[in-house]
Amino acid sequence: MELLDGKKISEEIRAEIASEVKDIKSKSGKIPYLAAILVGHDGASETYVHNKELACAQVGFRSQVLRFEETISESGLLAEIQKLNANPEVDGFIVQMPLPKHIDEQKIIEAIDPKKDVDGFHPVNVGRMVIGLPSYISATPDGIVELLRRYKVETAGKHCVVLGRSNIVGRPVANLLLHKGYPGDCTVTICHSRTPNLKELTLQADILIVAMGKPEFVTADMVKNGTVVVDVGITRIPSEKTKSGWKLVGDVKFDEVAPKCSFITPVPGGVGPLTIASLLKNTLKAARKEVYG
Amino acid sequence: MELLDGKKISEEIRAEIASEVKDIKSKSGKIPYLAAILVGHDGASETYVHNKELACAQVGFRSQVLRFEETISESGLLAEIQKLNANPEVDGFIVQMPLPKHIDEQKIIEAIDPKKDVDGFHPVNVGRMVIGLPSYISATPDGIVELLRRYKVETAGKHCVVLGRSNIVGRPVANLLLHKGYPGDCTVTICHSRTPNLKELTLQADILIVAMGKPEFVTADMVKNGTVVVDVGITRIPSEKTKSGWKLVGDVKFDEVAPKCSFITPVPGGVGPLTIASLLKNTLKAARKEVYG
Repeated sequence: MELLDGKKISEEIRAEIASEVKDIKSKSGKIPYLAAILVGHDGASETYVHNKELACAQVGFRSQVLRFEETISESGLLAEIQKLNANPEVDGFIVQMPLPKHIDEQKIIEAIDPKKDVDGFHPVNVGRMVIGLPSYISATPDGIVELLRRYKVETAGKHCVVLGRSNIVGRPVANLLLHKGYPGDCTVTICHSRTPNLKELTLQADILIVAMGKPEFVTADMVKNGTVVVDVGITRIPSEKTKSGWKLVGDVKFDEVAPKCSFITPVPGGVGPLTIASLLKNTLKAARKEVYG
Repeated sequence: MELLDGKKISEEIRAEIASEVKDIKSKSGKIPYLAAILVGHDGASETYVHNKELACAQVGFRSQVLRFEETISESGLLAEIQKLNANPEVDGFIVQMPLPKHIDEQKIIEAIDPKKDVDGFHPVNVGRMVIGLPSYISATPDGIVELLRRYKVETAGKHCVVLGRSNIVGRPVANLLLHKGYPGDCTVTICHSRTPNLKELTLQADILIVAMGKPEFVTADMVKNGTVVVDVGITRIPSEKTKSGWKLVGDVKFDEVAPKCSFITPVPGGVGPLTIASLLKNTLKAARKEVYG
């Protein structure tokens, strides 16, 4: 059993990006520029945005956080997005979710210029990804595929079973692994809350991607020997063994499943650390105009 | 075994559309207007476009075919598309494929205003379909879903196995049947040329959708009793039994598979007749501004 070490791969990717930024800077003077819109003061959102800023600094990107009180109106926020769309210095930007209830998140996502949509949530980028055109792939599915690639996990002709059909993980990663080429060419099965015979299907998986948000749901009897397991879940549960009184667990019962696996992600330290690396990759693509020319 | 009679359903849909057109016309004077661009003189394309014109006439739509010689340049064709995009009278239009080799088909597809893209091939419409937003769904996947709906085929929790991962059939129909609600909530498996254990998977199918373009590929030993089979393939093969010396067959060996099925599409007369009905539905949606408001 080998760990799919997201922390290590994330550091590799960041080092590669930092070196490319130096290169671009020396050749053209250009510095990739990522902006983030943060509405309100949600603790988790503050942390995510802060970590993104740190990551930008680390690889040599320019970054800026635009903060707004949660009283901002939808039209006010849309106006701010238009400013970023129109600002030629900004290569890409994100709007940190969730947004206050009076703002329609889908409307906000669709207001972002697809060329600057480095979160990859705009329908144009989703459609381009599904069709197989160059696109910004959203962070979690991109991180999963990157992990498989960096560990040279075989994918062609393998049966990949995805648990969860969300628009941010299950559905896009299924579409990605279905494409021709590497990492891809998988037979793909997507299961979800309405699937009655989950275990019958997970036992067929050569690659099992779990994104259900159900702590320790996948047990040893649900996976065959030699499976590659990617666990996207992360939930805080009470624990008597830690000082804090809680611990983070994935959707997979790691201790009992890991011995049966050829590869498995730890939680934390699996897919999580790769999401910011994917955002940086997309911003670099945007700065280079790789997707839309 | 019951036949999924695409011809009958197509006539039902056309009758419904004709009645809605009368209704719209009497209320607002508006007549839905579909335009088609036809480049060159390919026999099959001429037939398709002609059938679309006939269907428009039958339901009371206004239609127009814009014909261009195959010497038209890409920029010339793009200019014609811009004219249709800008023409407020045209609700929707299609560009009949294939196009001459000197024209980039993807570029043409992306030049169509998504609001008028009644073929549903623009990345925005593909992305919206995948995410689950209102969109124009392309003709074949929409036809398949419509057949299941009209015959009240149970889909929730059923295992739908799709053979073929094309952008025009396999991939979109898989994404559609994965959505919440009816017809949807399927567990979905997508197989293709790189799948090594096809029979093992097809034997698990409650609903089997075949879109491979391999005549009579699916045999009786590959399906379990009671399966719903939707055959999208249509190939002309030599036959000693017909006067013409050929016959049309699907991807499924109908005679031996049909007795095992609860429902099965005939070929011809299954999905085929529904594709034009789907195009008419999309044009009606466009005229009513149902997708983009």
